[in-house]
Amino acid sequence: MPKLDQTHDPKLQSWLASANGHPDFPIQNLPLGVFSSHSGKPRGGVAIGDRILDLGAAIEAGLFDGEAREAAAAASGETLNEFLALGARARCALRARLSELLTLGNPDRSHAEACLHVATDCTLHLPARIGDYTDFYVGIHHATNVGKQFRPDNPLLPNYKYVPIGYHGRASSISPSGTAVRRPNGQTKLPDSEDPRFGPSQRLDYELELGVWIGSGNVSGEPIEITKAAQYVAGYCLLNDWSARDIQAWEYQPLGPFLSKNFASTVSAWIVTPEALAPFRSAQPSRPEGDPKPLPYLTDEADQKEGGLDLQLEVLLRTPAMREKGLSPHRLGLSNTRHMYWTVAQMITHHTSNGCNLQPGDLLGTGTISGPDAASCGSILEATVGGRNPISLPSGEERRFLEDGDEVFLRARGQREGFAPIGFGECRAVILPAL
Amino acid sequence: MPKLDQTHDPKLQSWLASANGHPDFPIQNLPLGVFSSHSGKPRGGVAIGDRILDLGAAIEAGLFDGEAREAAAAASGETLNEFLALGARARCALRARLSELLTLGNPDRSHAEACLHVATDCTLHLPARIGDYTDFYVGIHHATNVGKQFRPDNPLLPNYKYVPIGYHGRASSISPSGTAVRRPNGQTKLPDSEDPRFGPSQRLDYELELGVWIGSGNVSGEPIEITKAAQYVAGYCLLNDWSARDIQAWEYQPLGPFLSKNFASTVSAWIVTPEALAPFRSAQPSRPEGDPKPLPYLTDEADQKEGGLDLQLEVLLRTPAMREKGLSPHRLGLSNTRHMYWTVAQMITHHTSNGCNLQPGDLLGTGTISGPDAASCGSILEATVGGRNPISLPSGEERRFLEDGDEVFLRARGQREGFAPIGFGECRAVILPAL
Repeated sequence: MPKLDQTHDPKLQSWLASANGHPDFPIQNLPLGVFSSHSGKPRGGVAIGDRILDLGAAIEAGLFDGEAREAAAAASGETLNEFLALGARARCALRARLSELLTLGNPDRSHAEACLHVATDCTLHLPARIGDYTDFYVGIHHATNVGKQFRPDNPLLPNYKYVPIGYHGRASSISPSGTAVRRPNGQTKLPDSEDPRFGPSQRLDYELELGVWIGSGNVSGEPIEITKAAQYVAGYCLLNDWSARDIQAWEYQPLGPFLSKNFASTVSAWIVTPEALAPFRSAQPSRPEGDPKPLPYLTDEADQKEGGLDLQLEVLLRTPAMREKGLSPHRLGLSNTRHMYWTVAQMITHHTSNGCNLQPGDLLGTGTISGPDAASCGSILEATVGGRNPISLPSGEERRFLEDGDEVFLRARGQREGFAPIGFGECRAVILPAL
Repeated sequence: MPKLDQTHDPKLQSWLASANGHPDFPIQNLPLGVFSSHSGKPRGGVAIGDRILDLGAAIEAGLFDGEAREAAAAASGETLNEFLALGARARCALRARLSELLTLGNPDRSHAEACLHVATDCTLHLPARIGDYTDFYVGIHHATNVGKQFRPDNPLLPNYKYVPIGYHGRASSISPSGTAVRRPNGQTKLPDSEDPRFGPSQRLDYELELGVWIGSGNVSGEPIEITKAAQYVAGYCLLNDWSARDIQAWEYQPLGPFLSKNFASTVSAWIVTPEALAPFRSAQPSRPEGDPKPLPYLTDEADQKEGGLDLQLEVLLRTPAMREKGLSPHRLGLSNTRHMYWTVAQMITHHTSNGCNLQPGDLLGTGTISGPDAASCGSILEATVGGRNPISLPSGEERRFLEDGDEVFLRARGQREGFAPIGFGECRAVILPAL
């Protein structure tokens, strides 16, 4: 697990005023991403306050040495895959140097300032070329809520508390925050209809998830032990796994969700490192009395002690009418990564337990992370109980599912007494009407 | 649909003697792949008889002009993705020139001969960087046979005859023929046991499938119409979708197969083009009386008339004892691509009907293609009825599922009166014991 060091000091101030007290990107965060400005190609950068530090420019200005320079070079291209593959040591060297460089009083300030771009003038891209995308189902309240709609007496299937359930998703249709999502057409079948019909989904939903970026990979045939699994994580993001519930209900038997999910997924563009999240590690929440113990290959004392994460997760909605009236996005759910039944290390170890190989830049999703009550749902399917109880919005509107023009925002935030709070940045998209 | 031209003439003979009458690679086939010889890097080549033509070397020797030269250049690198993206026109130009160049009497023979490598001295690699891999379930006899083992009275689910069922598989663990497959460990639960156990799969299986390489892709949000879907296919291969049935049974609810499949998939290394397969197109077999018509978005007259394929598919087994006794591989099943309930065009149109974007080098699998009887099963689960009826082998051994050291071979072959028969080359792998 990452150690706490001077880069986590909450008293650390940057010479860049906008970084100090920035809700997402104070000097204690330093997430990496890929951006482009008006003129240049997509290239690696670091978010700091309302600016982006151009890593390639900073190398040319001579601001890095040794291992930090190697890491910065690997992170300066069109994707961060090469950087992700380097692992923790190089990542920490870069973080230490970035923290020093951006700290108030650093003599290299003027050189570094010349490498900053105004973030709102830049375009953010996917931070890595995603080889494979796997989505898990570790939010036990989500699994229970959804299960209840299908099987009121037996919401959780018998495998749930033994197997970190997951499945493969679509890598090609993952986009960075801000990319609009077109409502999918598809086959749906109403309960009282004999035949299915083809047309726009009527039950379009969001899913509030944490994304995990894989760093170094494993060789095919060689599992990753639970005691080492955390070392394979290069960072985290927000993930909205858009879902068409009516398409899903008709197609998912027997091979799982397909077209109901693969039309689009949205990620926040910045990779928040395990080092930045070190202050927000927590014990894995204890399993309810009577739950089975995880099998030995999924059991590790250190993981139980600090393999959990304590991050606030939030989903908000803004409709076209709300935009017109100047209303802020309305919160639909407030949850926390502590509601994960399995840790990220358990997800990785399970995923590779059969020898499956992970590669740098692979993306894992946790699945929807809902809390135990109605105010903490991570999908509208749960919040409206399958569309039966509409949500009331401050504009006077109601929603059972998402409508065209609706904009969905996800947010994540780490906050803990004695540490500087950090955020993940924007993860939003607007719904376009079906073709 | 590809047209028949002089490259399909069965009387065409090559100056390379081994090509004439070659079971897989006569001059009428000309599949593309990526190979390396002792010295060089992986690079694009064409299989002809028992040789491989080095495309980069042939360009340097001045053997290509115009569009054929452009296509050869795109196919001469470490992966064929760039070539696949070019589409049919460039592919046809290259095929026409290759056919001419290799035909008996061609004046460039000596220059071309200098670009040939002995195939058995070369290593074959994956022909493309696979972005996403999707596996379908279009073999209706397979779906019925497997369904019967779970639901004797109702083997096919209600969606089967409306939806070309598919799901996302794992791209990272796909290997070319010859790569050994390690038996996976995983969670399994016996019916009479209260808890699952973790250990080597006891029900390891093969799956006999046709693979489809995607050529040009579609833009996210823009479906591919059924009338145009065939244009997006760049070629075909064999695909063995190894499956651990005991892991599958315990894990697959509710999100589908995951670790039971993603430890390994094996493909034949040569991309057999739609042009090479033009003589083996056929009408889509008519649906049994009473089956629903496909929905309009999946209906196209031309596809019904010639969107089917008539390729013989075969799976064979050789155990260590058979190898020791010098016995040939034993046929476990003989099937045909005519047992597909949905065409490749219907798979592509369905896949993109929600706007999902396909990319050059994506791989689609058809799912296991079994025939209607016991001798035509494409998986051992079907051939032994879930392990109940063991298969007898010429070595005196029996098999209920695959054992360590077993080697599985897939074969595909097009043959039709008036045309030169062609094959797909080798798709084989041996099972290594679990770790």
